[in-house]
Amino acid sequence: MRIDLNSDLGESFGPWPMGQDAALMDSISSANVACGFHAGDPGTMRATIALAREKGVAVGAHPGFQDLAGFGRREIKATPQEVEDLVLYQVAALAGMASAQGVRLQHVKAHGALYNMACRDRALADAIAKAVAGIDRSLILFGLPNSELLRAGEAAGLTVAAEVFADRAYDPDGSLTSRAKPGSVIHDTPQVVERAIKMVRDRQVVAVDGSTIVLTADTICLHGDTAGAGALARELRRGLEAAGIRIAPLRG
Amino acid sequence: MRIDLNSDLGESFGPWPMGQDAALMDSISSANVACGFHAGDPGTMRATIALAREKGVAVGAHPGFQDLAGFGRREIKATPQEVEDLVLYQVAALAGMASAQGVRLQHVKAHGALYNMACRDRALADAIAKAVAGIDRSLILFGLPNSELLRAGEAAGLTVAAEVFADRAYDPDGSLTSRAKPGSVIHDTPQVVERAIKMVRDRQVVAVDGSTIVLTADTICLHGDTAGAGALARELRRGLEAAGIRIAPLRG
Amino acid sequence: MRIDLNSDLGESFGPWPMGQDAALMDSISSANVACGFHAGDPGTMRATIALAREKGVAVGAHPGFQDLAGFGRREIKATPQEVEDLVLYQVAALAGMASAQGVRLQHVKAHGALYNMACRDRALADAIAKAVAGIDRSLILFGLPNSELLRAGEAAGLTVAAEVFADRAYDPDGSLTSRAKPGSVIHDTPQVVERAIKMVRDRQVVAVDGSTIVLTADTICLHGDTAGAGALARELRRGLEAAGIRIAPLRG
Amino acid sequence: MRIDLNSDLGESFGPWPMGQDAALMDSISSANVACGFHAGDPGTMRATIALAREKGVAVGAHPGFQDLAGFGRREIKATPQEVEDLVLYQVAALAGMASAQGVRLQHVKAHGALYNMACRDRALADAIAKAVAGIDRSLILFGLPNSELLRAGEAAGLTVAAEVFADRAYDPDGSLTSRAKPGSVIHDTPQVVERAIKMVRDRQVVAVDGSTIVLTADTICLHGDTAGAGALARELRRGLEAAGIRIAPLRG
Repeated sequence: MRIDLNSDLGESFGPWPMGQDAALMDSISSANVACGFHAGDPGTMRATIALAREKGVAVGAHPGFQDLAGFGRREIKATPQEVEDLVLYQVAALAGMASAQGVRLQHVKAHGALYNMACRDRALADAIAKAVAGIDRSLILFGLPNSELLRAGEAAGLTVAAEVFADRAYDPDGSLTSRAKPGSVIHDTPQVVERAIKMVRDRQVVAVDGSTIVLTADTICLHGDTAGAGALARELRRGLEAAGIRIAPLRG
Repeated sequence: MRIDLNSDLGESFGPWPMGQDAALMDSISSANVACGFHAGDPGTMRATIALAREKGVAVGAHPGFQDLAGFGRREIKATPQEVEDLVLYQVAALAGMASAQGVRLQHVKAHGALYNMACRDRALADAIAKAVAGIDRSLILFGLPNSELLRAGEAAGLTVAAEVFADRAYDPDGSLTSRAKPGSVIHDTPQVVERAIKMVRDRQVVAVDGSTIVLTADTICLHGDTAGAGALARELRRGLEAAGIRIAPLRG
Repeated sequence: MRIDLNSDLGESFGPWPMGQDAALMDSISSANVACGFHAGDPGTMRATIALAREKGVAVGAHPGFQDLAGFGRREIKATPQEVEDLVLYQVAALAGMASAQGVRLQHVKAHGALYNMACRDRALADAIAKAVAGIDRSLILFGLPNSELLRAGEAAGLTVAAEVFADRAYDPDGSLTSRAKPGSVIHDTPQVVERAIKMVRDRQVVAVDGSTIVLTADTICLHGDTAGAGALARELRRGLEAAGIRIAPLRG
Repeated sequence: MRIDLNSDLGESFGPWPMGQDAALMDSISSANVACGFHAGDPGTMRATIALAREKGVAVGAHPGFQDLAGFGRREIKATPQEVEDLVLYQVAALAGMASAQGVRLQHVKAHGALYNMACRDRALADAIAKAVAGIDRSLILFGLPNSELLRAGEAAGLTVAAEVFADRAYDPDGSLTSRAKPGSVIHDTPQVVERAIKMVRDRQVVAVDGSTIVLTADTICLHGDTAGAGALARELRRGLEAAGIRIAPLRG
């Protein structure tokens, strides 16, 4: 049994640091690197690729809306063509910067509002899939299990990876519980570890109402911008390995 | 005898059009495409690559300082590392977008203040050359004849192209006459054509003081943002061809 | 009888010109000046204020979403607090720049997607009204007749102005016919003039289905970015004046 | 005897926090608030003004070059007109936002590269002074003692304030020792306090070569972005007060 652990990294910008990239890189297997539109200037991108390479972590692009002040978390009513273009631009930029360091991109994970919108909206999902396929047909496209984004990726001939969240509550229909609701984020480390093991081994998670949801988990997302992110990642990796689950990149 | 004709294109941004790209593409052989930092949003970049492909014009990257309001024409005291990173990012973005359309980049020409600074400053020139070589060692680096930029390109193992300006006056030392001086830009079309022919055939240009300068001309730059740019390009192409000089991309 | 004619001006940015500001300023009575977020850099703002002052045109702020590439026309899911802050910032910037030229702002008209969203959404409308009132309680707030934006302005104690469009078709419910539909923009100048006169004199407009809509018209908007904008403005002014309607700013 | 203590605050941006504003506000008397170009989005500006108001700290504008990635620390070859416009825009924005909270701006301190360039270059200094005077002739302009910036402020009829740095080494000619040199920043708190007292009481500072420099100190700058900034500010205030020097805003 094996699983990929991914985290959003390289989200510093200019003079403003963010996240605990170095700590997380010791535990994860795949890094989603910001590409300059919602975070991540060219210098940060270069340094993040270098760090991932040094730590043996697979590199993926993490393109978002061009909204630094809103960190790409605000929905922008962009057309599919605009989305295709901005994904193409950002993934190309990171792919080329990675290639200059001898690193080949493994995957693409859309960021924030772009990810959420594309999981629901097939036209935007198709736009992202088309852009990714245009750069490199072997890139793996991340998305929520059973989302339009994964369906679009498959339709475009891409390998897709279903992403789950070990520290987030799930509604009975399999969607993530809104962050606005109490209990939507799970802060108890042993519980996060237990949920992750169950997701990987049994393909199950217990929803907020106690019901059991069946889901596919190709990769588990760890938030990198919280205070204890480094420690949580370490515990999660340890717990998964103790349960006989190997942590490895998707193309490992 | 042959020569390359290049022009800066794709310099629209969002709702703001600029230049006469379609008209120029009929006459030039190489397009320097803005990469989003001084001009050129992702949609404009895609459309410009498509147009160049359709017209058989070679595509190059035209990276500049991140200064939309100043159009990349203001010198910014960036470090060599910052310059390397911003060139890497922009060239990578355009190269990937071109590749998605089946187009391989031919060259890189720095824009505006970045070009001028790198022609004089070896550390910045080395930074640009390093970035370009990191993307693709077969890319051709443009620069003023005898400039630090060309020397840096050669030192990095790149093919370089010496760029001349048929519609600009030259000082006796071979540098371009400052735009602040009267007569620095030549508006008379027959004179521009005549100078271009002399540059290519005789490797000579007459300076403002009447003296003759010897220079290498691998590519002639045509400004694309002036009113009569399309007509001037057509006349220049016609004049060069009438003189037995073939217009062709550098890798033609 | 009198009416205000307004137009969106100062929408150039850096090296990119837009619109026919000088031509329009000869016919309109109020200028909505872009404030740097969707268009309009500080230099353009200064020059536009100077031109309005010279031509005796009242100056208003035209704040929009921070989205140059999308020209503020794309909806961004911003919070009311974010909207209040961005309106406060932009109106303050223009008000201070105008004051430096001895010009006092007359009004505020939100731009593009921000205007449309605030006409429908009371929370965003309240945020805009609060920002405007915070700058200067005597500023006049523009909005569609019967919109949440006007209601919010009134609730905040502001004077409001109902804005109509002489060159746009109306649906029977009084809303503007979507630009996506044929006939949504009226290009026939005599018809535009006739509609404007009817709007001012009779407070009526004929909808696309032939029914008559009653509406309040405090100010008529003229689009400034179309080819014949200057000529249309001239004809409209002439037609209104011939019908005995005086063109004057709202605080005239 | 009295002195003003100032610090650069409000330099967070979007999701990226910076500095220890709350801690510093307990000790300083004047806050230089970033205005959106090098740091500080509208929401941060509003919150920083509110905090200063609550703590009884005078508010000033801290305008910089439009260079988020470079934090306004990179010199940009802007024209005097461009500098005037960008200062006018930023100071106006902050002044209006402050006014909406019932706060009147006390001063203007240019940021980073803009400050340094204007201290040396009279044309840029005049541009800043003109912009500041255009907003409000009672605003106090900060600059290095004996700088072009102070001379320009005086020529424009503004009150000026000579700014000194208690934690920076000085060269014998009275200029700040380059940060590139060892010992340029003084980290020993008692030494910083002692230097500050000597600057205020004796108008003297000991230069790196041991010679004594005479200087005018109207306001002392405390860096707000270093780890121990809050503690240093507290100690400095305590030390100055113990020496009989009162900390008060310039217009106290």
